[in-house]
Amino acid sequence: MSDHIVLTSHPRGKAGPSSPVSWGAATAAERGPLVAASLSQPALRNAIGTHSGSYSVYRALAVAAGHLQRDHKPDLTDTAPVVTLGPHPQWADPHKIISLDPWGHRVAEYFAEQIAAGLDVRPTIAITKAHINMPELVAAIAAGRLKPDGDILEANGDVRVTKAAIEPVWYLPGVAERFGIKESALRRALFEQTGGMFPELVTRPDLKVFLPPIGGMTLYFFGDVEKLGKPETKVACRLHDECNGSDVFGSDICTCRPYLAHGIEVCIEMAQQGGVGLVVYNRKEGRALGEVTKFLVYNARKRQVGGDRAETYFERTECVAGVQDMRFQELMPDVFHWLGITRIDRWASMSNMKHGALAAQGIEVVERVAIPDALIPADARVEMDAKKAAGYFTEKVPDAAELVVAKGRGLHE
Amino acid sequence: MSDHIVLTSHPRGKAGPSSPVSWGAATAAERGPLVAASLSQPALRNAIGTHSGSYSVYRALAVAAGHLQRDHKPDLTDTAPVVTLGPHPQWADPHKIISLDPWGHRVAEYFAEQIAAGLDVRPTIAITKAHINMPELVAAIAAGRLKPDGDILEANGDVRVTKAAIEPVWYLPGVAERFGIKESALRRALFEQTGGMFPELVTRPDLKVFLPPIGGMTLYFFGDVEKLGKPETKVACRLHDECNGSDVFGSDICTCRPYLAHGIEVCIEMAQQGGVGLVVYNRKEGRALGEVTKFLVYNARKRQVGGDRAETYFERTECVAGVQDMRFQELMPDVFHWLGITRIDRWASMSNMKHGALAAQGIEVVERVAIPDALIPADARVEMDAKKAAGYFTEKVPDAAELVVAKGRGLHE
Repeated sequence: MSDHIVLTSHPRGKAGPSSPVSWGAATAAERGPLVAASLSQPALRNAIGTHSGSYSVYRALAVAAGHLQRDHKPDLTDTAPVVTLGPHPQWADPHKIISLDPWGHRVAEYFAEQIAAGLDVRPTIAITKAHINMPELVAAIAAGRLKPDGDILEANGDVRVTKAAIEPVWYLPGVAERFGIKESALRRALFEQTGGMFPELVTRPDLKVFLPPIGGMTLYFFGDVEKLGKPETKVACRLHDECNGSDVFGSDICTCRPYLAHGIEVCIEMAQQGGVGLVVYNRKEGRALGEVTKFLVYNARKRQVGGDRAETYFERTECVAGVQDMRFQELMPDVFHWLGITRIDRWASMSNMKHGALAAQGIEVVERVAIPDALIPADARVEMDAKKAAGYFTEKVPDAAELVVAKGRGLHE
Repeated sequence: MSDHIVLTSHPRGKAGPSSPVSWGAATAAERGPLVAASLSQPALRNAIGTHSGSYSVYRALAVAAGHLQRDHKPDLTDTAPVVTLGPHPQWADPHKIISLDPWGHRVAEYFAEQIAAGLDVRPTIAITKAHINMPELVAAIAAGRLKPDGDILEANGDVRVTKAAIEPVWYLPGVAERFGIKESALRRALFEQTGGMFPELVTRPDLKVFLPPIGGMTLYFFGDVEKLGKPETKVACRLHDECNGSDVFGSDICTCRPYLAHGIEVCIEMAQQGGVGLVVYNRKEGRALGEVTKFLVYNARKRQVGGDRAETYFERTECVAGVQDMRFQELMPDVFHWLGITRIDRWASMSNMKHGALAAQGIEVVERVAIPDALIPADARVEMDAKKAAGYFTEKVPDAAELVVAKGRGLHE
């Protein structure tokens, strides 16, 4: 292997990558393999970025420390998905799926020949099975809301699930189209706002695919995954954006874990009735602002003159972050297209942004399921009222008089 | 603002940044502000990368979509930490803290003048307060293991905590020294293994500080944070590496959430006895390999001839990832140096790697607290036996006869 460091900032005097990607082609073979894994095959690369997202930084530490060969290629024996998933017609539409690789779970099969010949092609999706158990589900059984069936749900609260991990794969022309902006403007912002990550975003317009180093998503399926994509299959879904403080530690300033647990109940019920339940867990901590910003905002909310109240809830985030929210639900519907889902019968979310993004992509939502009032924690009333006033799904929008009342705890209570 | 895109791949013909960083200086003023925020002040930058880690990609989307001004600067009013933390003598030792900014929580105060003059300096640490509530703690109260005191722990299971979010800030010469490698080798691996992220790693050796786009950590404090750093203060700690499948969903293939909940019990007890409890939650999903790799490995473990057993537990990870583990506990002790902790009285972890990393940094561990056997989930025996055989803290190392027995479930059970 050469000792020469190959920089990435200028085109190599070629017209383009030797194996261009035909995004939205009808088969994996026509689309072609995505090659992003390493700088050791620069002429063969057809994507910007690399696999495993930001964990590539740890891979770098492993190589630097001498624990990992710099050209290690994964042995994919026995790793294939445990269920058949797709193909669905949406996979061949370059406008429907632009932020994940629809063929990404079965690259070891589709591109076996190229991999055997030494090309470094890696899965961007993995699908396995698991048993999960959450105290809230045990409580739901005890309360008689959930009934064990010995198949999907055991009497001890164990739930049989299929689960999938998905890394983001962005087709840059498609992402730009989805936001209604120029591809060049998207590439420039991606370069500049990340502190100059990946100059190829601006120097290599011929490379159309980008594997951004952001967290991906995890899907939890309840019931028979292979029923998805059939028009008669009823689907329940909770689409959940990560909130570590609530999801893991049960912080009472928001409704995240309670709504997630409620969504899982809704999913189990749907599976028990012969449909499919689906939880989509997106790694978008703190509205994709990250936890440092989130905690700064908490302090500003609690300390402001007049106390923590719905009226100024979004304003405090905007002062620190410049925006109220950075999650951009525009890309979120892709996963439903990937699963062949055109209709969601029970949608456990009150977010108008999520709902609007689905509608814009032609995915029908039949019933919106609000979080039961009893599950809203003490300090989360400020957030709930603020969101309802801003367009959240609700039967009763709070009026101005309610929004000015400080309902949040003080910092030192 | 200029329409010209400034690339980052070559030095600008200067001897170095206009405000070099004196890492390990005795005061924040002498160390100097870290300037990494934007490409709009290229001459003033003294760090590679940017704030908010990988969430900078979402910031880029916000700018590209026209929702955020490209030069937005945060308004830090009311965001300051809720407790006094440090300074501790360790902050002035450039060999002890190399992966976070010890002054990062109070930049708005230390560098008020520079910020007022327009310099974009941002906090890399935020500290707030919260109430948390986990069903396991409610169960511990019911079982009589935990006693509510109306201060730290309420009868309904609510726990008062202080919490901190910390973004990684790497001083590259220090990181290289910690791993015993050349700084140039570290920089090269970071560039190459990330698919060419940040050419400045190799073109700008004068920039010594790097904000890597990886997840940071969250600290949960139980008891009086301001007692930390005093030799008489007893400390209990659970150092936890993220495992979303268990931490949130309660997957039974590992001990992650049960050990975390147990660690929190240990921390609450310590706080009730007048000491301080600390949970460090590191965003290192799947041993810093990410969830796609983790799920691929699960499939390979369950499908291998002979079934899922401790004997081949690490091997299956190595086939796919090239290493058994990428967490690199070498950098982990920094947070204890930052908190002024030189002795941990109760350490709720069995990991020999974590224990060894603390010892190498001169941090004493008095008592190691194993997870109670009753808390180990059904399918997690394979992992537990494999780790004990490999050096995990235990009273009884499993013998070869035990390691060959398949104790894990099959994929379709």
